[in-house]
Amino acid sequence: MAVDRSVLIPALHNIATQLRIDSVLSTTEAGSGHPSSCCSAADVVAALFFAEMRFDPRDPQRANNDRFVLSKGHAAPLLYAAWAEAGFFDRAKLLTLRQISSDLEGHPTPRLSFVDVATGSLGQGLGVGVGLALNARRIGSDYRTYVLMGDGESVEGSVWEAANVGSHFDLDHLCGITDVNGLGQSQPTQWQHDMDQYARRWRAFGWEPIVVDGHDLNALLDAFANARATKGRPTMLLARTIKGKGISFVEGKDGWHGRPLKKGEELDRAIKELESQFVKLPQVADPVSLIAKPAPLPPAPKPASPPQIGEPSYAPGEAVATREAYGTALVKLGRADERIVVLDADVGNSTYSEKFFKAFPNRFYEAFIAEQAMLGVAMGLATCGAIAFPSTFACFLTRAYDFIRMACISDLNVKLCGSHAGISIGEDGPSQMGLEDLAMMRAEPNMTVVYPCDGVSTERLVAAIASHRGPAYIRTTRPKTPVIYPATERFEIGGSKVLRQSGQDLVTVVAAGITVYETLKAYDALKADGVSLRVIDAYSVQPIDARTLREAARATGGRVVTVEDHYLDGGLGDAVAEALAEDGWVVRRLAVREIPRSGKPEELLDRFGISAEHIVAAVRTMVAGAKP
Amino acid sequence: MAVDRSVLIPALHNIATQLRIDSVLSTTEAGSGHPSSCCSAADVVAALFFAEMRFDPRDPQRANNDRFVLSKGHAAPLLYAAWAEAGFFDRAKLLTLRQISSDLEGHPTPRLSFVDVATGSLGQGLGVGVGLALNARRIGSDYRTYVLMGDGESVEGSVWEAANVGSHFDLDHLCGITDVNGLGQSQPTQWQHDMDQYARRWRAFGWEPIVVDGHDLNALLDAFANARATKGRPTMLLARTIKGKGISFVEGKDGWHGRPLKKGEELDRAIKELESQFVKLPQVADPVSLIAKPAPLPPAPKPASPPQIGEPSYAPGEAVATREAYGTALVKLGRADERIVVLDADVGNSTYSEKFFKAFPNRFYEAFIAEQAMLGVAMGLATCGAIAFPSTFACFLTRAYDFIRMACISDLNVKLCGSHAGISIGEDGPSQMGLEDLAMMRAEPNMTVVYPCDGVSTERLVAAIASHRGPAYIRTTRPKTPVIYPATERFEIGGSKVLRQSGQDLVTVVAAGITVYETLKAYDALKADGVSLRVIDAYSVQPIDARTLREAARATGGRVVTVEDHYLDGGLGDAVAEALAEDGWVVRRLAVREIPRSGKPEELLDRFGISAEHIVAAVRTMVAGAKP
Repeated sequence: MAVDRSVLIPALHNIATQLRIDSVLSTTEAGSGHPSSCCSAADVVAALFFAEMRFDPRDPQRANNDRFVLSKGHAAPLLYAAWAEAGFFDRAKLLTLRQISSDLEGHPTPRLSFVDVATGSLGQGLGVGVGLALNARRIGSDYRTYVLMGDGESVEGSVWEAANVGSHFDLDHLCGITDVNGLGQSQPTQWQHDMDQYARRWRAFGWEPIVVDGHDLNALLDAFANARATKGRPTMLLARTIKGKGISFVEGKDGWHGRPLKKGEELDRAIKELESQFVKLPQVADPVSLIAKPAPLPPAPKPASPPQIGEPSYAPGEAVATREAYGTALVKLGRADERIVVLDADVGNSTYSEKFFKAFPNRFYEAFIAEQAMLGVAMGLATCGAIAFPSTFACFLTRAYDFIRMACISDLNVKLCGSHAGISIGEDGPSQMGLEDLAMMRAEPNMTVVYPCDGVSTERLVAAIASHRGPAYIRTTRPKTPVIYPATERFEIGGSKVLRQSGQDLVTVVAAGITVYETLKAYDALKADGVSLRVIDAYSVQPIDARTLREAARATGGRVVTVEDHYLDGGLGDAVAEALAEDGWVVRRLAVREIPRSGKPEELLDRFGISAEHIVAAVRTMVAGAKP
Repeated sequence: MAVDRSVLIPALHNIATQLRIDSVLSTTEAGSGHPSSCCSAADVVAALFFAEMRFDPRDPQRANNDRFVLSKGHAAPLLYAAWAEAGFFDRAKLLTLRQISSDLEGHPTPRLSFVDVATGSLGQGLGVGVGLALNARRIGSDYRTYVLMGDGESVEGSVWEAANVGSHFDLDHLCGITDVNGLGQSQPTQWQHDMDQYARRWRAFGWEPIVVDGHDLNALLDAFANARATKGRPTMLLARTIKGKGISFVEGKDGWHGRPLKKGEELDRAIKELESQFVKLPQVADPVSLIAKPAPLPPAPKPASPPQIGEPSYAPGEAVATREAYGTALVKLGRADERIVVLDADVGNSTYSEKFFKAFPNRFYEAFIAEQAMLGVAMGLATCGAIAFPSTFACFLTRAYDFIRMACISDLNVKLCGSHAGISIGEDGPSQMGLEDLAMMRAEPNMTVVYPCDGVSTERLVAAIASHRGPAYIRTTRPKTPVIYPATERFEIGGSKVLRQSGQDLVTVVAAGITVYETLKAYDALKADGVSLRVIDAYSVQPIDARTLREAARATGGRVVTVEDHYLDGGLGDAVAEALAEDGWVVRRLAVREIPRSGKPEELLDRFGISAEHIVAAVRTMVAGAKP
């Protein structure tokens, strides 16, 4: 920061004023938005962008740029104004805010190249920031990461999960800023302007808290310098601010959250007030000239794309749990491609991600029992070229569903793995059974979902997912299952396998994962009675192999049964039903229809209607109905 | 606690030893489970149950009993052993642990009358405990609430959300205990035995931390007494323990998480060691005689059941947002029934739950922006007879999905409301749009889901949900919609309304919420062209009105279109498809098929394929196909 403070401070002050004006004008033009939440943070953003961060304003995706995450995403107009001020696009575009034709959305999304992750669901930015900071280490860069949060979101548990991970990894190149404007959406925030409430929490969580007047540019610059000088732990700037700062009739007043100024007298008065705050500069300063540029980063090694891992080494008949095959596949992928990183929430010995930890401890990130932090960190890493595999029990991914949702809005390269799917886990009982995971993952329109049944298909599909661009979910099973595919077999996203077929097939049964084996048992039992089944392993649940399913349905007179270790709604049955609806075929679904309980896996499969016996019964009913 | 310590301590010591023996024997018999996690907490539980808590061991549901939540649910065998020791059931039953015929499941569920909520998803117990403590105030009882947590779960964000709410409400009758045994599932816990890491966090969050040797019964009794004497804030006992305590070859060793002792030499040695720890008692003490009984509580006022709120006061054609009608309905219900309580996460002025706050501030619980805490508190209140309505934006309920899942396993009377459903919220963009909420709610088999379209149906359905027993979800819409139903109209769970029908209907269109209005527009447009539609408002999405849908499908030759402001999978379309599959009918679905963006509501409905124009087009295609 070579510029003299006597020159810098007035320039920053004028920039902050311009950011306020832009935020007010754009939200008024849009007819909605949060100008008061922009005004409280305008000085912080002016100081950060134009006197603290090193970045190339013409190239927001440069690998060595300092990073900025706007966790309080509703202050989007302020972010847009800052990038306009930095010369990345024309200020006139700000007035397209929130229009359907504009990428300047109500909350930031990565449709804009200067946005790494979508924000707007409060409490997520810090976890992403932890991931961005860990990425700097991964790629050997000295870039710093800044996360601007609101005070209201400081009670989100996800913030404190991120706080723990940030201090666990000693991320002294991570700096949070809390814009403590004291007013939430519906009322004053939990601690209003009691700065000690914030400071003591952050200190207790191992961070360096720095309380600062968020409208004092000199103090802000000092605070950022202190943050930079702090070693061994992350810093949290606690900026005491006033909501609506700069507009006298809005400042610190209730009733101005998420409310633009009305065109006419109200707007005119605000703009006049703000314009009167411009100071005469000692010299003409082009804001862009103030921005410090990062040093060039040595080029990253060219990644092997897609990673190749050769053939699985499982022999047909060998018993291996798909969760264990997942761990083995991760290690092979990790060897083939340095971009592969793995994240855990203290169940690595159950999901088998610990295999990767043992092989590549530097690319394994332990979040302890904090699933939201695990996802946030994965998202941060994924924005920077990493291929991130966070894994835990399928049921505990529900804890991170909001992060998953936002990862999908951001279309990030996050590859989730949920182990211990379904009632087949047995005695641990319903709290440990993932039975709604397919529903929650399938609901996201850009989520790929695979559900392998054996070691070979698991390894192949994990590799396919690693090469695939975008969010994905791999569902694995607790018990061991026999390998049914030869090592040479190929699996692709959107594919399926016809495991049994003949010219006499009466009914198609579509299964995936553990129910493939129940279906094969049912096949044998029915074959002994002269009833021939077509059996399909629908390992790609989303997208599903509609062509193969429709062919099978046609070949079996539209008689189709689905069977899945998942609740009735939102899973495999729905996916198959949708694929067949175009031809007018309906399906009979076998699925878990009530809250299950503890018991032996095979007892539970039978008790809850998805065992071979139930498949046989469903087929018999269907076949009987087909013989008028 | 009238018993002399010199008598009490040896008695408690023997009880703790018995609890360890029972935990070891039952898990070995089951062949799975967590004996080492039971052993670390056995002294804490012995002291709590037999010398601290006041409860009637023959009547676990007595309203004035002190409450105990086993947040570390994997220590279930310890809980079961304590209740056997307290005489509630025969010790022999402990050996049925984890069997399908036994209610002694792998993790506790409310199938057992002494379990208020299912646990086993770590980090949830404290939020529930906050709800139980708030309930004591609600019913005017002086009962105390105890929550036993593990150290591993202390990094779950939900714990710190609960911590904030607990201190916000000054819950000095709430006492947490963290069993700091230092070992997680896959590795040592984040802070191992560094007790200050815990103490400073709890202190910073406004709790009274008390560090104690978790195997020193005298110290534990003192700590509990100190907790009882602490006023104005909750207490957290930080009990330093040893995992596997009492069994020399397990104590503090890695590799014993979730592993029962092997029958034979291993088990025999453990039991022998434990049995040698029994001390000779100064006098024969019946454990049950040690338990302090609570004072009787004055009988609660007889609740009006079901609450009656009379007719809605909306006039046909009046414009009212269903979210606002929800707030109005809550106030009416609150007036009719004292059991109604409402919870918010700082969006009360958007969900309109603030109407209830203004009318009944004492029955309104503000969790600030902490959705998991909101759910936990609601669950705690619901276990004690309250009818709890937690509400926030539909999209932010994803943040609490794991709590919702566990509330369903517990079959609690929690009535969720998600506002701002779908793309019809407009300019705020995808982060604020609930588009997977129906999928996540419908996946839970015992969840009732309603989605009203106007003020009258909202008020009627909120009342119906209040009277209904079990978890439920109400989906509301941001924009105002005209009232289409007369105030006298009746709505029931599982019902629907046929809004348009004639003998010439060619196609059935099934809609709910905002798309009802698009469908009515499409009806008018098509009618002008001589194409007659049957229009159904499927306000009860789960259970859905299969009978009416099937009648309509039959009447329109199986031509059915669904249209919903939700992603394609898991919503209304799937519900209708499932209902019609039995008759062999398939549906054509209009739904949001990609990640949306900011824009005006009407622009978005059109851009993402669910506007009247798209319905008209879908119907025309269908009708054209029907004329060969």
